[in-house]
Amino acid sequence: MAIPTPHFTLHTHRTCPAAFKVAHVLSLLHLTYNPIYFDSENISRETKLIWFAKLNPNGRSPVLIDHSQNDHVVWESNAILLYLVQMYDTKNTLWPGSIFEQSQVNQWLMLQASGQGPTIGQAFWFGYWHQEILPSAYKRYVNETKRILTVLEKWLEDKKWLVAEKMSIADVSFLSWYEEAYLVDVDLTAEFPVVDRWLEAMKTIPEIVKGSEGRDMIKPKKLWAREESQGGKFS
Amino acid sequence: MAIPTPHFTLHTHRTCPAAFKVAHVLSLLHLTYNPIYFDSENISRETKLIWFAKLNPNGRSPVLIDHSQNDHVVWESNAILLYLVQMYDTKNTLWPGSIFEQSQVNQWLMLQASGQGPTIGQAFWFGYWHQEILPSAYKRYVNETKRILTVLEKWLEDKKWLVAEKMSIADVSFLSWYEEAYLVDVDLTAEFPVVDRWLEAMKTIPEIVKGSEGRDMIKPKKLWAREESQGGKFS
Repeated sequence: MAIPTPHFTLHTHRTCPAAFKVAHVLSLLHLTYNPIYFDSENISRETKLIWFAKLNPNGRSPVLIDHSQNDHVVWESNAILLYLVQMYDTKNTLWPGSIFEQSQVNQWLMLQASGQGPTIGQAFWFGYWHQEILPSAYKRYVNETKRILTVLEKWLEDKKWLVAEKMSIADVSFLSWYEEAYLVDVDLTAEFPVVDRWLEAMKTIPEIVKGSEGRDMIKPKKLWAREESQGGKFS
Repeated sequence: MAIPTPHFTLHTHRTCPAAFKVAHVLSLLHLTYNPIYFDSENISRETKLIWFAKLNPNGRSPVLIDHSQNDHVVWESNAILLYLVQMYDTKNTLWPGSIFEQSQVNQWLMLQASGQGPTIGQAFWFGYWHQEILPSAYKRYVNETKRILTVLEKWLEDKKWLVAEKMSIADVSFLSWYEEAYLVDVDLTAEFPVVDRWLEAMKTIPEIVKGSEGRDMIKPKKLWAREESQGGKFS
């Protein structure tokens, strides 16, 4: 079967960590894609929301369209990773062949989806965007981010990869969010050297480097830094 | 192959919503299990934590052990659901046969894992357990709970089930958390009648009723109710 080029369209934002894990896996599987970054296009927020709502009832980035499969649409980044490996990873490069090892990849993938991602996301929220400064809420999510990092630090102490001594979509799924951990006061190199080594090993893979192209890191000022610059004080 | 009875051990708590979705799916697939509820056993919190850490590096409930597969261990509730259908749902009763429909089940499952569960969980936290009363944090998670409910309300308006007109693990995965929605000031019947109808259709299935056996709902007093009873006031 002839696969059209590019194989996929990836609808997303340049600052969406979840989308870059999809780009990493597309790149690792040597699948081509055309990224549409809504924050770079000259369109209104309203138009963007209508567009996303058409593709994804939950209205969120990323959304992947597979042009070789009648424009099949998949949303939720980890559901996209599962679709990609089940459909295209026929050589089991990022997805094990055994159902037992698959269940282990799934459990780490679910920890990323339910734990790591939302927790860093909430730390961001209370650090940068909430309508008032709530130090105990911010600390809650920084602490939970560090608890999950401690789990990984211990698990990876005597392993190079999460499952079956081989890189899988589970490993890749953790990378893009942790690349922003420094924004919520987590110093991976100093506090979690084992995790840091694991992430650095992924970051140097040429396909991962390629998948990161087009990414922007946002660096707004913390709520309390803005407050202080206006004469207030963060306690 | 002879399957031992009970087939599984389910380590959990009587108040863990995520564990009861596993019990629902075990029951729907007619698989037998022995539940071990740590909150009912006469053991210390410390012993419990050590025990959970041995089974699950993340130390959380639920954990499932499959006695017919050399005591294979799986944790994270949605990873357990995927393992159960991939291993035992050979007739595709809760898991479609097509990879495209599977990807749709996965995307709703991931929305449950990354959105619905953590969001209600955080509403609980700021409603019942945080060290101080933070009304704007509580409201944030109640509002996000309602946003996700609005997505489901719209999606299910002309459908009985989330994917392919058939109940799947995706539908079941949403049930147990929503059974506690009233605890965070969400009145499903009044505000989300379509979702309510969908959940009620599941709740009357005999296997789901059976899977809910042993469950306790916790009903602590809200932080501000406690504060008010001590003379304070919630604003």
